[in-house]
Amino acid sequence: MNTDLDKHSVFFVSDRTGKTAESLGQSLLSQFDGIEFVYKTYSFVSTEIEAHFVASEINKDSIATGQQPIVFSTLVNDEVQQFISSTDACVISLFNAFIEPLEKSLQIESSHTIGKPHETYDDADYKKHMDAIDFTLKNDDGIRTNKFDKADVILLGVSRSAKTPTCLYLAMNFSIKAANYPLTDDDLKSDTLPGFLLPYADKIVGLTIQASQLNAIREQRRPNTMYASLKKCQEEIKHAGIIMNSHNIFTIDSTAISIEEIAVMIVKEKKLLKSH
Amino acid sequence: MNTDLDKHSVFFVSDRTGKTAESLGQSLLSQFDGIEFVYKTYSFVSTEIEAHFVASEINKDSIATGQQPIVFSTLVNDEVQQFISSTDACVISLFNAFIEPLEKSLQIESSHTIGKPHETYDDADYKKHMDAIDFTLKNDDGIRTNKFDKADVILLGVSRSAKTPTCLYLAMNFSIKAANYPLTDDDLKSDTLPGFLLPYADKIVGLTIQASQLNAIREQRRPNTMYASLKKCQEEIKHAGIIMNSHNIFTIDSTAISIEEIAVMIVKEKKLLKSH
Repeated sequence: MNTDLDKHSVFFVSDRTGKTAESLGQSLLSQFDGIEFVYKTYSFVSTEIEAHFVASEINKDSIATGQQPIVFSTLVNDEVQQFISSTDACVISLFNAFIEPLEKSLQIESSHTIGKPHETYDDADYKKHMDAIDFTLKNDDGIRTNKFDKADVILLGVSRSAKTPTCLYLAMNFSIKAANYPLTDDDLKSDTLPGFLLPYADKIVGLTIQASQLNAIREQRRPNTMYASLKKCQEEIKHAGIIMNSHNIFTIDSTAISIEEIAVMIVKEKKLLKSH
Repeated sequence: MNTDLDKHSVFFVSDRTGKTAESLGQSLLSQFDGIEFVYKTYSFVSTEIEAHFVASEINKDSIATGQQPIVFSTLVNDEVQQFISSTDACVISLFNAFIEPLEKSLQIESSHTIGKPHETYDDADYKKHMDAIDFTLKNDDGIRTNKFDKADVILLGVSRSAKTPTCLYLAMNFSIKAANYPLTDDDLKSDTLPGFLLPYADKIVGLTIQASQLNAIREQRRPNTMYASLKKCQEEIKHAGIIMNSHNIFTIDSTAISIEEIAVMIVKEKKLLKSH
């Protein structure tokens, strides 16, 4: 039995990865409370045969659920898009909707070519990107504190406060050299930063988190340990807060926001890119 | 002197990170050949005061360049969007354009609330995500080949063929445990896979790259070395190809495509997610 029949079907169709359609589509659908959606992504749909297949999947779903599916499409080619548009779905064609006003404003016709890469290979950019990833991998979890002078930013927080994924996101998406340092029990006994961090205080960003969530996360990693206990989580977060306050360190609460959002807040606060 | 004056200004405005607007906007603009664009992103624009500031920046740009700027906006709040819509720009409001057809299809009014996170905290998903990142960090660059049985996928290729960033992308975006193994000089002397990889042949994906590009990348890392020379690059790629062919390993040429695309091709080929 398909338990997804109660949910509203949403299809993302793209001649590229489908990430853009997913991102905008999910953001739009988050505005509709009380409906449960089930998502299917079809990426690299570039031929009429593939589009015909996806279209029949959409129509099948419409019959099976008795509901009009929602389709977000970023197909560039009109002939391919045609198959999707002809389905029984509510089809939102992200591309077609806007190409006309853009042609008008730019006073030039669009080329309607499929799947141009967003990024093109550029020596300097590529090197910066790879250097940032290398640096971040080698400076995770306070492994090499002697390289902190080379970091663009240093994330500080207790264990499992989202430092590592945030550092990786900064390196992968913004080519930022992001190091991180986990505050240890010894560090937390003091009210101030560990001495070796003092020279870098202005490139430190603190990460904090609600104790109940940290407790839940740590319980998953090491169940029924002192490390995971709510009491220990509360104490660590409290002392980390005292240290960060004493140096006026900009601190982000990672509890209810995504890694992507934490990363953009850091970029903005520390002015790590020209326009953000 | 501002050399950007010749270029066409593009603004991305969002009450979230702006990544969705950037992605769709750049994809749309890649259809217009011969125009050089210059991009500015304003993220977390959530109040009327902030929107008023961004609007005045857009109008200033219009006067300075004598060209109509293009604005991609994903603002949810109508009052905030109003400021952006009133500028002298070609304003593409990704959100407003589609909320109405969706309301019609779903037969429910949208809540028009700002910035609901796309991801919500879910214990099982979070654990899977963190485990994948941990695994990928600890199994980069063939460090621990004894953990390959736990990997969802193993990327194989010569040094600097994009294995590490692809693994990180897979872990960060799809919670996939991605290991990688760099073919060494010793490995490349043989026509077949190193023995310890044989049990995992069906979860290996090969990465290859054009010799001229590998040469350029390696020259940046270690200029004027044998390692970076075109001849060495050509030889390594040729022998890696022989090894991969002898085991019918699915291989992707990373030369002209983005990390994101390589990742999605791997997900599709190895059926690592339900719908891709």
